[in-house]
Amino acid sequence: MPATVEWFTRSTRGYCATRSPHGKETMTATTRLITLAEFLQLPETQPASEFIDGQISQKPMPQGKHSTLQIRLAETINDVGFPQKIAYAFPELRCTFGGRSIVPDIAVFKWERIPFDADGEVANTFELAPDWTIEILSPDQSQTRVTDNIVFCLKHQTRLGWLIDPDEKAVICFQPNQLPDVLRQPEDSLPVPDFLDLRLSVGQVFSWLKLGQRF
Amino acid sequence: MPATVEWFTRSTRGYCATRSPHGKETMTATTRLITLAEFLQLPETQPASEFIDGQISQKPMPQGKHSTLQIRLAETINDVGFPQKIAYAFPELRCTFGGRSIVPDIAVFKWERIPFDADGEVANTFELAPDWTIEILSPDQSQTRVTDNIVFCLKHQTRLGWLIDPDEKAVICFQPNQLPDVLRQPEDSLPVPDFLDLRLSVGQVFSWLKLGQRF
Repeated sequence: MPATVEWFTRSTRGYCATRSPHGKETMTATTRLITLAEFLQLPETQPASEFIDGQISQKPMPQGKHSTLQIRLAETINDVGFPQKIAYAFPELRCTFGGRSIVPDIAVFKWERIPFDADGEVANTFELAPDWTIEILSPDQSQTRVTDNIVFCLKHQTRLGWLIDPDEKAVICFQPNQLPDVLRQPEDSLPVPDFLDLRLSVGQVFSWLKLGQRF
Repeated sequence: MPATVEWFTRSTRGYCATRSPHGKETMTATTRLITLAEFLQLPETQPASEFIDGQISQKPMPQGKHSTLQIRLAETINDVGFPQKIAYAFPELRCTFGGRSIVPDIAVFKWERIPFDADGEVANTFELAPDWTIEILSPDQSQTRVTDNIVFCLKHQTRLGWLIDPDEKAVICFQPNQLPDVLRQPEDSLPVPDFLDLRLSVGQVFSWLKLGQRF
């Protein structure tokens, strides 16, 4: 689907987060027509906003459990993926593809799929789906919307999706052409991409919430 | 897995809903060992309780949107399934199989799979998975737990699962050996079992919340 296709907001629940001249973030309900191209011209918001089916929605403000899992998991992935340039985990990276512009909590890319500028620096614009998308549920966040984004990734080039539910101490794992797995026993082994030499169990991931030893 | 296998409650979040001698329902935290056989001996609670991985959890009290969708959808299915004895939709039917005892919001069975007593009446005990399981999300209900129950059904004999999210006006559809579909455009056509001559769109289902005309 071309990036410039016009989408209509289909619901009055669409919100447009904008920054006023005084720097204060305001949320205004919108039913106006907006294109992906127009969305990408808007200033970034904090937390990030996503463009999905013509609607703009802002991610929730990360809280303690979310932040803890996000940084710890990204570090863990980069500890095994970075030294040999196998893969890299980017927290809060905007990925624009298939008509959506989304910001997974962690987007993991195999090294050869990371776009670099001519000068060898990581590009600013990622117009591709991650190899592994990781979302961490926040209180009051719509799990249906998060699920929708993960399934959307999997229908593109993503091979693995995790939906981490800190309240339930469960991880729902999505892989192409199969039912999701709901893993919630501490000893359950979590699937990781085969390009990473990484073993993680459900219990290990949620033990990070206690901020114990790094390893 | 045999029905008498012993399960341990793995978390202090396990609750046991019991009826006191005064008829008042009490919720007491339990970490004691309980078997599926023991669970099935307990008096039924209202709302129903489910037995999942050694834990007992009580379903939320249905609210307006949940009840409206539940009865209307069951009626609609029975309007096409009952006259020719093709299938029947049971709201709040306990289904015990694979080591769990769950109570889908609607359990749809093909006629030939419905257990009958010798006298021709519907049996009380359903020790099998429905052909189609339908769950309607309640406010504050764990979507991960509901998803887990649907996936569990699909890993047994169930061929279709719906997770209806009234807040998001979306239906997540689960079918064996494939990723779930998140359907949320009013015109999106919802998958139904091929034994039923039924066509439903997302818009139709959520229009029932307005309690308009029956057809």
